[in-house]
Amino acid sequence: MKIKQHIPALDWLPNYKKEWLSGDLSAGLTVGVMLIPQGMAYSMLAGLPPIHGLYAVTIPLVLYALFGTSRQLAVGPVAMVSLLTAAGIGALKPDNLETYLLMALTLAFMVGAVQFLMGAFRLGFLVNFLSHPVISGFTSAAAIIIGLSQLKHLLGIKIPNSEHAYEIVGSVAQHIGETNLVTFGIGIAAILVIKNIKKLHKAIPGALVAVILGILAVWGFGLVDQGVKIVGTVPSGLPGFSVPSFDPAYWQALIPATLTISLVGFMESFAVAKAIQAKHKDYQVDANQELIGLGVANFGAAFFQSYPVTGGFSRTAVNDQAGARSGLAGIISAGLIVLTLLFLTPLFYYLPNSVLAAVILVAVAGLIDHKEAVRLWRNDRADFWMLLATFIVTLLLGIEKGIGAGVLLSLGVVIYRSTRPHVAELAKVPGSPFYRNVDRFPNLEERPDLLVVRFDGPLYFANVNYFNDKLAELTAAKGGALRLIVLNAESISHLDSSAVHALEEWVKGCRNRGVQVFFTSVIGPVRDALNKWGLTPAIGEDSFFMSNQQAVDAFDNSSVHKDAVRDYKEYLLQAN
Amino acid sequence: MKIKQHIPALDWLPNYKKEWLSGDLSAGLTVGVMLIPQGMAYSMLAGLPPIHGLYAVTIPLVLYALFGTSRQLAVGPVAMVSLLTAAGIGALKPDNLETYLLMALTLAFMVGAVQFLMGAFRLGFLVNFLSHPVISGFTSAAAIIIGLSQLKHLLGIKIPNSEHAYEIVGSVAQHIGETNLVTFGIGIAAILVIKNIKKLHKAIPGALVAVILGILAVWGFGLVDQGVKIVGTVPSGLPGFSVPSFDPAYWQALIPATLTISLVGFMESFAVAKAIQAKHKDYQVDANQELIGLGVANFGAAFFQSYPVTGGFSRTAVNDQAGARSGLAGIISAGLIVLTLLFLTPLFYYLPNSVLAAVILVAVAGLIDHKEAVRLWRNDRADFWMLLATFIVTLLLGIEKGIGAGVLLSLGVVIYRSTRPHVAELAKVPGSPFYRNVDRFPNLEERPDLLVVRFDGPLYFANVNYFNDKLAELTAAKGGALRLIVLNAESISHLDSSAVHALEEWVKGCRNRGVQVFFTSVIGPVRDALNKWGLTPAIGEDSFFMSNQQAVDAFDNSSVHKDAVRDYKEYLLQAN
Repeated sequence: MKIKQHIPALDWLPNYKKEWLSGDLSAGLTVGVMLIPQGMAYSMLAGLPPIHGLYAVTIPLVLYALFGTSRQLAVGPVAMVSLLTAAGIGALKPDNLETYLLMALTLAFMVGAVQFLMGAFRLGFLVNFLSHPVISGFTSAAAIIIGLSQLKHLLGIKIPNSEHAYEIVGSVAQHIGETNLVTFGIGIAAILVIKNIKKLHKAIPGALVAVILGILAVWGFGLVDQGVKIVGTVPSGLPGFSVPSFDPAYWQALIPATLTISLVGFMESFAVAKAIQAKHKDYQVDANQELIGLGVANFGAAFFQSYPVTGGFSRTAVNDQAGARSGLAGIISAGLIVLTLLFLTPLFYYLPNSVLAAVILVAVAGLIDHKEAVRLWRNDRADFWMLLATFIVTLLLGIEKGIGAGVLLSLGVVIYRSTRPHVAELAKVPGSPFYRNVDRFPNLEERPDLLVVRFDGPLYFANVNYFNDKLAELTAAKGGALRLIVLNAESISHLDSSAVHALEEWVKGCRNRGVQVFFTSVIGPVRDALNKWGLTPAIGEDSFFMSNQQAVDAFDNSSVHKDAVRDYKEYLLQAN
Repeated sequence: MKIKQHIPALDWLPNYKKEWLSGDLSAGLTVGVMLIPQGMAYSMLAGLPPIHGLYAVTIPLVLYALFGTSRQLAVGPVAMVSLLTAAGIGALKPDNLETYLLMALTLAFMVGAVQFLMGAFRLGFLVNFLSHPVISGFTSAAAIIIGLSQLKHLLGIKIPNSEHAYEIVGSVAQHIGETNLVTFGIGIAAILVIKNIKKLHKAIPGALVAVILGILAVWGFGLVDQGVKIVGTVPSGLPGFSVPSFDPAYWQALIPATLTISLVGFMESFAVAKAIQAKHKDYQVDANQELIGLGVANFGAAFFQSYPVTGGFSRTAVNDQAGARSGLAGIISAGLIVLTLLFLTPLFYYLPNSVLAAVILVAVAGLIDHKEAVRLWRNDRADFWMLLATFIVTLLLGIEKGIGAGVLLSLGVVIYRSTRPHVAELAKVPGSPFYRNVDRFPNLEERPDLLVVRFDGPLYFANVNYFNDKLAELTAAKGGALRLIVLNAESISHLDSSAVHALEEWVKGCRNRGVQVFFTSVIGPVRDALNKWGLTPAIGEDSFFMSNQQAVDAFDNSSVHKDAVRDYKEYLLQAN
């Protein structure tokens, strides 16, 4: 039972059903075919030779299949993590490719360690702090940065690497005259092939067709002589064992990239894993075990010549649609890549870089989501500004700062909002026992001697002054005839010690001015706080009621009051 | 009207009532008498010659009387701000007293600017983020640090300045052998006088008596020859005009101290202003105008040879008890100090430092509040840990870091708590229409086909996953017979865009599994969000009800359902 919890494959492997096999096989092969061009393209995006993208979908896939909880998630290199890898390592300006690769291995190891430990310490909930608008804002901006970073391959020009949109645009503008038109033509053709070939038949792997056509064109027409950059020699054979660096200087320098990749990679992966799981009822995904699964997969990447991996959005969707029922599909994909590595790598010699750039451009174009911005502008202005701020900061200052700004901003808004919760003055719906907001409903029965107030949120240190001010304002508006304030506490979800003190003062103050205060619908945790602090006796046990109407009736009629108090006491006696 | 709002004195000055005068006069003189020893003592605590503490209660007091909203607040040097001044400037290690004073003036100017701008931009609510436990924790720790910092004066030994408790204790232990017993004896005697003379008559100004006795003793017995350190020459006359530094290097270095003093000073001042105002009904205090008033007072300190001031706790209480009715009391206090500066400063020549240390020690001893810690330990464990953490960090790392840690920790707890709000499964109280928590009340009417859930808090990006998990758990616990989930939304205070998406998915998921979902008691702002996002029609307008019982009845009986839906629609039609 315990082992099964930590190695989810022990759950499905012994119970493997024959009828799953055809789906797993078809899905595994389909995703494997997708992975060949994508792996090479994303590896190029990460700043590494294409072969490491293929290595990334061997051992890590098998490890995720064993330790991950999703049965359809297709793990491997993805665009966002590849860009973050390039940005994180590029900032350290490694001298040569060897150092660059060592840093990539180290990054994979660190990401694995962070994800594994987060899973072990059950910190999966941290991912919740990336809100919908923040994710949308930085994904769109990152897609633009990724797209821009591929322009050099598409145009066949040389510009320095950068993760800042304006720098890339500047460099491209400077060098646009050096465009290699043949390279550009191949790239555009590849984009058109990938985008349109699906119209012939849904099952055609567009990117692979573009790769094959690109190779044939370069080889057949001798386009290397025209200056078309090609992938060149792709080493054959399986990845050898590799060891990441344990140099503290490397580690310190890679910490920001590690944290971003760990969180963003997990978030992207977990979002799609959950969405797909919702369609299947035969298993559950667990955030913490997912972190462990991805962590172990990244250890695999670190020790087998690769770079950070995570679950990819589109590949997972394809895996599911093609019928994957278990982790076996991922293992089959890895098997196909192993065969490719053993026998097919010489075929990629003439593959033009611009075709790989086309693969990336088509993939990230779908990530730019302006519709969400429009929806938020219409429906939730605060969330719109959060999206826009994240988008702009990401474009101007880079992805890590963009995410950081987005998270801080959204938490700031949460805090700010909780400092001034919604407060409603209620009055009676005629002919019913219900009390509703006087600002929203006309024709309510208002009384000059009665103020019914509902405070919607936790009452705590940062909003007790707001509570006092708001109540003072409402009390003043009622004027001198006021005799009873009913505090409808049903939506006060929590009371801290500051709030307890403030509440006591407030009740005292009201009563000193000859205004009675009753509490209604106080929920359990708040009742506990009032009891612990001795506030229930201080306020008076006969000042608590189950509903607004009972409180008002009790105030109007002291004999009813006695009955109501007795009822409430009997009712509380049953509570624990 | 507008001008009155910015210069509150224009409100009370033209309407000054003759009967206020006797109270203002008596209070002004009483506080003035208190200010002479306290001003000198706190100035010494701030690391400045005693005279600057007297300067601090001339112009700044008049300015606050004009611009502040409280009519009883006694502005001037206080222990906490004086210590923060010493800590902030001491960290910069100024070469000589002249530079030290220039830094103090600059600090006063910067504090004035920050407070004035905070008031102008209506940021007074920021002070709410200092929660009760955080204030209690750092006040106790600061009182201990202040007390320790006075030991050298009390013992007559020389040790380096520090705001770290352990460093002071270490230095004192090292030099305790050098104690000047006469100095120590005078100090102890002064403490006994201040603490006990009130027993003779409440109106006797203990600190002033100790000062007079101390001067007489040193002068009469020639104790300077015994090594007793005295105040020495106190310059006579009013403070000259001074100009703070506008050197950017100074400004940058003083930013942390500025922010801490601005916030802590304002908070201390505003807390006492509010507490005293609650006893008077003839005026209101306003957080933002208070910031402006204190800001202007600090400008006065900067331009008239002084250092940061704020409203003091005990002096304000004395001012109120002695009958202050308007800002005139403060102006009278300032007048008494002006007379002292003009004619009485030679008298302070023989004043022993150990008497001033005694004044400070007695003042801060009252600030150490272990009872609050005990209360929190019993009643609110989370708040207790916050207090303890703030206390320990303040003692070990200093006041600024202590406050910073306290604020971050308390906000972190608020955020963490909001990520996992209280969720209650409800069931019917037999024979009533009320639904209550099944974990708290026994003998409720539970039904296998019905799950009633109340979610207590805003539903937003950081807790939507918790919502999903919790609902999935409760649904699974109910088993296969479940047919209806009633989401009692009365205490869901807010819905953001992430929550709207999640809620839609959740409802769809339930219905796909053959479980109906009804919403009850949805409050206005949440109804707005559901309408804006088009979720009300998506969920179905016939799935919203005013109460749990109506929802359950509607489910049980489709003819009742139609009636209930019609009622709810009619009711909503009336709402705007």
